[in-house]
Amino acid sequence: MSDRKEFRDLATPEAAREAIDSLDLSPAPETVPLENARGRVLSERIDAAIDVPGFDRASMDGYAVRARDTFGADEADPAELDLVGAVHAGATPEVTVEPGTCAEISTGAVMPDGADAVVMVERTDELDGEGGDLNAEGDAPDRIAIRTAVAPGDHVMSAGADIAAGARALGPGTRLTPREIGLLSALGVDEVPVAGTPRVGIVSTGDELVRPGDELDPSRGEIYDVNSTTIAAGVEEAGGEPVLYPHAGDDYDEMERLLRRAADECDLVLSSGSTSASAVDVIYRVIEERGDLLLHGVAVKPGKPMLVGRLDRREDADAPGPSAYIGLPGYPVSALTIFRTFVAPAIREAAGQPEPATATVEGRMAVGERYGEGRMRLMPVGLLDLDDGDRPLAYPVDKGSGATTSLVEADGVVAVDPDTEYLDRGERVSVQLFSPDVRPPTLLGVGEDDPALNRLLDRLESPRYLPVGSREGLRRLRDGVPDAAVVAGPTDREVDAAYLGGWTREWGLVVPGGNPDGVTGLADLVDGDVRFVNRPTDSGLRRSLDDALDDLAADRDASRRDLADRIDGYELTVRAFESPVRKVLAGDADAGLGLRETAERLGCGFVSLGEQSVSVRAAPDRVERDAVAELAGALDDLDDAADGGGKPDLLADLAGYSRNSRNDP
Amino acid sequence: MSDRKEFRDLATPEAAREAIDSLDLSPAPETVPLENARGRVLSERIDAAIDVPGFDRASMDGYAVRARDTFGADEADPAELDLVGAVHAGATPEVTVEPGTCAEISTGAVMPDGADAVVMVERTDELDGEGGDLNAEGDAPDRIAIRTAVAPGDHVMSAGADIAAGARALGPGTRLTPREIGLLSALGVDEVPVAGTPRVGIVSTGDELVRPGDELDPSRGEIYDVNSTTIAAGVEEAGGEPVLYPHAGDDYDEMERLLRRAADECDLVLSSGSTSASAVDVIYRVIEERGDLLLHGVAVKPGKPMLVGRLDRREDADAPGPSAYIGLPGYPVSALTIFRTFVAPAIREAAGQPEPATATVEGRMAVGERYGEGRMRLMPVGLLDLDDGDRPLAYPVDKGSGATTSLVEADGVVAVDPDTEYLDRGERVSVQLFSPDVRPPTLLGVGEDDPALNRLLDRLESPRYLPVGSREGLRRLRDGVPDAAVVAGPTDREVDAAYLGGWTREWGLVVPGGNPDGVTGLADLVDGDVRFVNRPTDSGLRRSLDDALDDLAADRDASRRDLADRIDGYELTVRAFESPVRKVLAGDADAGLGLRETAERLGCGFVSLGEQSVSVRAAPDRVERDAVAELAGALDDLDDAADGGGKPDLLADLAGYSRNSRNDP
Repeated sequence: MSDRKEFRDLATPEAAREAIDSLDLSPAPETVPLENARGRVLSERIDAAIDVPGFDRASMDGYAVRARDTFGADEADPAELDLVGAVHAGATPEVTVEPGTCAEISTGAVMPDGADAVVMVERTDELDGEGGDLNAEGDAPDRIAIRTAVAPGDHVMSAGADIAAGARALGPGTRLTPREIGLLSALGVDEVPVAGTPRVGIVSTGDELVRPGDELDPSRGEIYDVNSTTIAAGVEEAGGEPVLYPHAGDDYDEMERLLRRAADECDLVLSSGSTSASAVDVIYRVIEERGDLLLHGVAVKPGKPMLVGRLDRREDADAPGPSAYIGLPGYPVSALTIFRTFVAPAIREAAGQPEPATATVEGRMAVGERYGEGRMRLMPVGLLDLDDGDRPLAYPVDKGSGATTSLVEADGVVAVDPDTEYLDRGERVSVQLFSPDVRPPTLLGVGEDDPALNRLLDRLESPRYLPVGSREGLRRLRDGVPDAAVVAGPTDREVDAAYLGGWTREWGLVVPGGNPDGVTGLADLVDGDVRFVNRPTDSGLRRSLDDALDDLAADRDASRRDLADRIDGYELTVRAFESPVRKVLAGDADAGLGLRETAERLGCGFVSLGEQSVSVRAAPDRVERDAVAELAGALDDLDDAADGGGKPDLLADLAGYSRNSRNDP
Repeated sequence: MSDRKEFRDLATPEAAREAIDSLDLSPAPETVPLENARGRVLSERIDAAIDVPGFDRASMDGYAVRARDTFGADEADPAELDLVGAVHAGATPEVTVEPGTCAEISTGAVMPDGADAVVMVERTDELDGEGGDLNAEGDAPDRIAIRTAVAPGDHVMSAGADIAAGARALGPGTRLTPREIGLLSALGVDEVPVAGTPRVGIVSTGDELVRPGDELDPSRGEIYDVNSTTIAAGVEEAGGEPVLYPHAGDDYDEMERLLRRAADECDLVLSSGSTSASAVDVIYRVIEERGDLLLHGVAVKPGKPMLVGRLDRREDADAPGPSAYIGLPGYPVSALTIFRTFVAPAIREAAGQPEPATATVEGRMAVGERYGEGRMRLMPVGLLDLDDGDRPLAYPVDKGSGATTSLVEADGVVAVDPDTEYLDRGERVSVQLFSPDVRPPTLLGVGEDDPALNRLLDRLESPRYLPVGSREGLRRLRDGVPDAAVVAGPTDREVDAAYLGGWTREWGLVVPGGNPDGVTGLADLVDGDVRFVNRPTDSGLRRSLDDALDDLAADRDASRRDLADRIDGYELTVRAFESPVRKVLAGDADAGLGLRETAERLGCGFVSLGEQSVSVRAAPDRVERDAVAELAGALDDLDDAADGGGKPDLLADLAGYSRNSRNDP
């Protein structure tokens, strides 16, 4: 391991920004058809090449007149004019309006020669040849009574009055939204010069990576490649065009070949994906030998292993000079954080795109947070908008850098200064969202995982639920961050909370189909040769199991510990309600702690050990919130159905589920 | 005209919304590849199908150990373990860690059998066979000194710890941003079920419409079709797929054929484009006879002629039932306003997309505005953010419904209640932006149009400039809305303003190349047979012309009026600085009021009548604003270049332009 690269002399975040600013990743401007121009940015000014309108244009349906002929006309004493013809939109006028005459005209039609104003149809009457009112349909009138006076120019838009040829229409740097596209259409522009789209090559590295959709072999340590797709989506969002290259392993020659190919074809090359130091080393050497390494290692957490440099291009590559290069950290949250903080602004700049107004929100710390590592920390935080007129709550999310779920459990990052040792509860913080499209959830729930709960969550608008288990859920509810906790089974914790509703689920031992070991209860685990798989202590299922074990121990005059020690796999805990069942299905265990629902759904046998109540409890000071009321409303379904005598829709087809028999747990 | 449809009994805006809500324009959900899923919305919940990670995974580079072997180890008294092999990321472990041994392990690698923790490499030393430090590179060590104790599970992420198979990953209705795409990648998902994209057919009507890029014949009253492209871009922005149909004329059969084809192929059909009552009539009849008209005419201004209904589909069309239909007003600003207010929300709803946070901004009225027509008014307003911590200023923009420039001079609309008769200056208003991507300008300028000014504006970030002429510009500056006014030539108005800089331009008579009429000055216009074309009285050029005419009148002991009456075309005014020159070029005039710059650039002759100063003046209370400082900074270029003796870059190649000789106009 002696050739591993240590990053000493870490650069400051400012130095990293300067290094990135010194890179040239701007593509040449290009011309695109107007129908593909939405969201693009003009690379040069556009002046009107024509007058709009291109002619004196009637802006009302009515009669084109010489204004002088209407002077003095009013309701009591209309002017009468001979009707000499009609002009319709899209047609060349074939009449001339001489003194004493008028022509019917449609909105948008060309003003006929002689006419200088339009009288709107509502202020006129059609007359027959004798001057009487003309009412019968179909007869063409000869004369028109004009019941109002108009001035020259009335209801006429003169040529160029909207915009005249030679006038500045849109400036360089204008982002094209529907309205600018409208103006360009009016000018007859069907293709526009826009800032080019930076091509961003993404080279993901690491022998362990597999593309989503391909077959995964976990025994070889394979994992799906998260960074390539995440960063590609981020590149697109920032106005770049992502180009995904095949995975590079940790081999120098392969890496060199891929990086150079990407440099030839792209404005910016990002490497990403590997978390192992040896892969990072290989990239490092390629950049040093085949390009120019500007800095390696930045004093931010995460992001220490970030690289900034240039990669040489082939002599005959399309673009001159070297391509820009940035190496991202391997862990997904770290990679997205560094991308968001350092890379996306550079891509936007190159694409001429402004920073979206929604990229940053102001929040307030939901809890105090201690820090003091002497380098800047980009702290992932989740947000919760309480709709109370105050800034949303921000709470740190730290599941470890390797957790991909942090991507969706956090909404963005807070840049904590190296000098900041403590963030107070309530302190104002600026949260850089992972993406301008991120919308913080309206409801935060924590606690037990449960299939009926999943259905309940599906009925709410953008909830966030952290399946931390019943015990941890109650702890967090007490600490004041979440709106609600979901608790299964008995609990010691006394937490002040409002009961919103709940249900009962049957739990027990999940065994292979047909129950080949003939398991009948807990005693078989203690006394027999059964490989068991358990749930963690935070889980409500585990608590019910331990209570049952206590009962068995009392029967036998033993301690729970004694019995537990005799269960093969009692200490082997797996994460979610389906996990033990999957171990059983895979043949890795003979029995697992689980639900009848899961056992039946996945085709396993089930030995019932009891029922436990699942309750949804809200923090008392959040009960009035709209989102909590929505949650309570969704739970009402349980009572509505029960009143009608049927099984609540929420629990339909869930084996072993029933409405909670108690009103309060 | 007796068959024209009058819209009586207008529906309320609420009734219009209800009618639109009653339409079904939701497409069926679809499945898209993950790489195309950004911005789409999940149509169903996605549960994890695999454990992530799929194996117990080292989360540090170091050595895999049995934790028990390290108990008691510290810096002073390291534990020494035999090194039995190595495990790399992406490889199946080929070693077993027996008591007293360890294996080198890379971040991300599978934990070998027997090991239950990882010691990070920084807390270890490599030893040679004799237990001494091993420094020489290349020699493989036999033993490792472990300088710290670790607990079981340290630096190991257990299988499923990130997310376990069966757990709820993302709920229905989740919008897919880079982070959700990251989580889906981790789960190996390569295609996702999403809400479908509503297909929105756009049928534009009116004989006068020509597609941008095609040849225009203004003598026939042809204009470019603005609504089709504008609305198509708006549809796309709202999450729909626009489908443009060929133009329909005002012919019933053609219109029927097009609308029915669009209905067969789309979820929603929009008709748009025509401003003439007869075209609207034809559509109206088609909907009544071939569908179901729910309402016609809504009590909003603009939008009276809005239609809502359904259009029958062919029996064998892809989708069952009728398609939704909405008829938009013909004028572009009206069409976009009605689209934004009534149609975009329905498309977003059908696409499962939330209303963007940036769709509405709160502003304050820059001026008072009287209103009282008894129906809701959607008042177009421009915005100006003064960066003073207060809400941006909102000022009404009313150039008449037919003006396409209103599209870019206004930023959105304020819905003014029928009961509101007056909006006070400073009153808080909610502005629905024309598009969530609209960014209000940072600087608002008004006044004279000028080619050097156009260059100056190009150097600023998102300025808005309204070329209303010098006189009107000063009036608006005095009224307090804009930041700056650009004034050319002499002026009577005394307006308190700060001089930021300026230049001088040569003006006179533009004549055809070679000056065929031998024009030498104003006297030739008065005395000769020369067809002249003038600029409006608000223009600084016109003011200089009138002053010169005053001088000539004084010489002749006549009045200016006398002389002006003798100029053929004195009353014929055209809009922009290039407009008179274009009239001359087109042969419609023999001389036009203009600039030497324009004459030379467009290849005309020029008879100089003098120079006039152009000055940029800021409102005194805005001088400190960043955007105004940026404007002043761009003007400094004039002085910088002059100090060096050269022609300022801003004026380079502009014939007849020079640096302002006066420091203050």
